[in-house]
Amino acid sequence: MRIDIITVLPEMLESPLGCSILKRAQDKGLAQLVVHNLRDYTTNRHRKVDDYPFGGDAGMVMQVEPVDRCIAALKAERHYDEVIFTAPDGEVFNQRMANQLSMLENIIILCGHYKGIDYRIREHLITREISVGDYVLTGGEMPAAIIADAIVRLIPGAIGDEQSALTDSFQDNLLEPPIYTRPADYNGWRVPDILLSGHEARIAQWKHEQALERTRRLRPDLLQD
Amino acid sequence: MRIDIITVLPEMLESPLGCSILKRAQDKGLAQLVVHNLRDYTTNRHRKVDDYPFGGDAGMVMQVEPVDRCIAALKAERHYDEVIFTAPDGEVFNQRMANQLSMLENIIILCGHYKGIDYRIREHLITREISVGDYVLTGGEMPAAIIADAIVRLIPGAIGDEQSALTDSFQDNLLEPPIYTRPADYNGWRVPDILLSGHEARIAQWKHEQALERTRRLRPDLLQD
Repeated sequence: MRIDIITVLPEMLESPLGCSILKRAQDKGLAQLVVHNLRDYTTNRHRKVDDYPFGGDAGMVMQVEPVDRCIAALKAERHYDEVIFTAPDGEVFNQRMANQLSMLENIIILCGHYKGIDYRIREHLITREISVGDYVLTGGEMPAAIIADAIVRLIPGAIGDEQSALTDSFQDNLLEPPIYTRPADYNGWRVPDILLSGHEARIAQWKHEQALERTRRLRPDLLQD
Repeated sequence: MRIDIITVLPEMLESPLGCSILKRAQDKGLAQLVVHNLRDYTTNRHRKVDDYPFGGDAGMVMQVEPVDRCIAALKAERHYDEVIFTAPDGEVFNQRMANQLSMLENIIILCGHYKGIDYRIREHLITREISVGDYVLTGGEMPAAIIADAIVRLIPGAIGDEQSALTDSFQDNLLEPPIYTRPADYNGWRVPDILLSGHEARIAQWKHEQALERTRRLRPDLLQD
């Protein structure tokens, strides 16, 4: 899988894409993450990519032209399944969407910045708008890193222990049960006895009950899906 | 405001915290972001911070002791308003929560990693569990960067144009209206005439109508709050 990320702040993505699972997946050839500096697609001397909004708002707006040129250059090289824009008012990103996207071949993620992007980009060039949550951030770079991480870790072989991804929260619409590790007693804070009992079947049942109970209490909406 | 972030992957946070608004807010003395390597709080020779889970699950679990030691060391220096853990099953982060958190003095954010963290940390040391969305990530580092960005940009003076933050999506429970910048015509894609008309009052009304219409169509839930 290949993910092209278009941004005015390529340096912001350096460490998130260069660490941990995303680095290992690239090293193993499972995923290719390519960051493009939008300024490389400008035609003006100052490599300017933004301008004042029509209609007198505050803030600067990302212009159509460099985005159009960058996306056209990428599309000339290969077919893209989706051109994603990270927007606070897009479809809300969730695990199901991560599963779907992880099966695609090539995607582009455009990171917004400044006050926003010219709406014509969204109307004509973007195929899917995704929001990672109901909050406003400085730019789309962290959302792009999050989408890339959530997707790439689902590619078989990307995380060391595949069993581990399958039992993650949301994969079965249940939150995870509490987990504990050594020591069994830390300054009087004890691990539940059942987990130390060695009774596999009873432990499995306890975990399932805990997962259900936590989901009912904390996220009843997940059970209604 | 001071934000202490505890992580096993401090290098992953380098570029997100060292760019853009978060960098400028620190340079201006508006926010202090301090990253702590959890391994510095281990007592074993291998700086190991994780161990196998009780009850036979796959994956590794972050241990209580180094987290307890790190948080205790920080608390010995100053009072903390919240000790936040970024968890997929926490309270869902939104703009209202960002507003609240931006008014605190000192907060700690603990980033989970591996399969999860020993549940006793959550029971005894964490005051607030926050999820940035319904998806599973490799670790809590990007969520911590997102929380920091969403909070810090609300501190007065952090972003250049304060007006701009006030009109962001969610601040008034409405999505933003479409925005456009020059050129008015890009290869036949035209900016709506009203925005070029110069009629301030009519433009303001158009924007409000567009914001309402987009919110009704895309995120009707925001209007029910």
